[in-house]
Amino acid sequence: MIRQLAIVGVGLLGGSVAKAARLGGLAHRIVGIGRDAGRLRPALDDGTLDLAVTELDAGVREADFVLLAAPVLTIEGLLERVWRAAPDGALITDVGSTKRNIVRAAERLAATRSLSFVGSHPLAGSEQAGYRVARADLFRGATVVVTPTEATELGALKKTTEFWEALGARVSSLDPETHDRTVAAISHLPHLIACALVDGAARVEPSALELAARGFRDTTRIAAGDPDMWTEIFLANRDALSATVEAFREALADLQRAIDAGQADALRAVLARIKATREQVR
Amino acid sequence: MIRQLAIVGVGLLGGSVAKAARLGGLAHRIVGIGRDAGRLRPALDDGTLDLAVTELDAGVREADFVLLAAPVLTIEGLLERVWRAAPDGALITDVGSTKRNIVRAAERLAATRSLSFVGSHPLAGSEQAGYRVARADLFRGATVVVTPTEATELGALKKTTEFWEALGARVSSLDPETHDRTVAAISHLPHLIACALVDGAARVEPSALELAARGFRDTTRIAAGDPDMWTEIFLANRDALSATVEAFREALADLQRAIDAGQADALRAVLARIKATREQVR
Repeated sequence: MIRQLAIVGVGLLGGSVAKAARLGGLAHRIVGIGRDAGRLRPALDDGTLDLAVTELDAGVREADFVLLAAPVLTIEGLLERVWRAAPDGALITDVGSTKRNIVRAAERLAATRSLSFVGSHPLAGSEQAGYRVARADLFRGATVVVTPTEATELGALKKTTEFWEALGARVSSLDPETHDRTVAAISHLPHLIACALVDGAARVEPSALELAARGFRDTTRIAAGDPDMWTEIFLANRDALSATVEAFREALADLQRAIDAGQADALRAVLARIKATREQVR
Repeated sequence: MIRQLAIVGVGLLGGSVAKAARLGGLAHRIVGIGRDAGRLRPALDDGTLDLAVTELDAGVREADFVLLAAPVLTIEGLLERVWRAAPDGALITDVGSTKRNIVRAAERLAATRSLSFVGSHPLAGSEQAGYRVARADLFRGATVVVTPTEATELGALKKTTEFWEALGARVSSLDPETHDRTVAAISHLPHLIACALVDGAARVEPSALELAARGFRDTTRIAAGDPDMWTEIFLANRDALSATVEAFREALADLQRAIDAGQADALRAVLARIKATREQVR
């Protein structure tokens, strides 16, 4: 049982954690922290938060569990202030979509003062954002990746894992580097490609989008994601993304070569192999 | 009212046309034509077809409306035989996903014998195939593109349009070249890209696919499509596809440049523009 849960950023993810924690009775007290008091109001009014504050220090001062639910680059910047303000024994985790930069920053801070940090990344979300789309069941059946390192305290890892499991999630563990490579492949690359697809299609035949069928709509749905959030993610995971784009380019070039050469058999074999790979994805 | 509707290929599309035509009472008699009598049996047993034959000539000999519902390259090959076997006054259309090659072949044949041909392409389908997934409402609300040329007889165009509208579709008209460029952009390119995405992700981090979240699943769903069908489509629309892939590559390179240079403002602006374009798609 958490005594005081402080959630920094009460949007889709932070708000959903707050709602689920409230519903599950996981914390005695839930404090929401945000820059804009007006935006925190709905979560206070509907009983999800016990307290809403705009001052980070005041919000985390008495928290034994701090969740940073801001965009990735913002989390990195917040860590230092949280590190100064949180009480001894506090456990800090986050929801950032990249982990190397955040975990590295937390480990540098741990050298100055021994607080527990465990990186988390819930693979849940939406192309929509904000508290109004937050829901208590967002994490039910979703995967949350935790990213411990050799420096992570086992008790803190266990507590963080149990927290996400209590929200209904399946928890996987990856080291921060593997995590970043993995999300580059399954999340950041698809997003980047969906964006290039919308842009490429519009360039070649501007009127084509009016006729877009289900395949195009599904493939490009995520291109309507929040530009601010995705700018941060792409920049934060630049290196891993770049390697993945390269692998994608090679895969595309292989397909193109078979098409340009009119090699039906070779093309069919590649497509069949890809179909089999795709069918392994639930 | 059609006297005898002959459908060559009773799979997802041909079967759905047969079911919808039966339900809507659009034809006195519906004949299904396929290479394998056993595969035609279910459509005969459930009352969708009045007659099932494995001989093309016998199947179209008394038809006033012939629908070619085979893969694109097969349709091209079938046209000549249909042209010889169909009775005077018959109207022939198809469901091929590319149109330049098919329309051109039909116009060459029209010089030898004056039959009516109108190219059709229903933008409906599924990554599944076969009569067992056919359904009478497949075309309800879907778009069907018809591709008349200067040589197309207006009465035939009207009849074909009314046929698809009677199945619940919205009909758009494009010349064959614009059609092929358009479907390259909104259908063939997304399919090719989804395939490269699955392959690229598997290359860079083979275990990544196990963690695939909703974004990846949606973006790559179509990569599980039928390899035979897509081999034909990619080869049949090679030129238009190639131009579209080039536009896609440029769009991707623009995004990558902004990411590699760490230009947050430029990247945000491009992503916002793409989001606005995507939001125009229903």
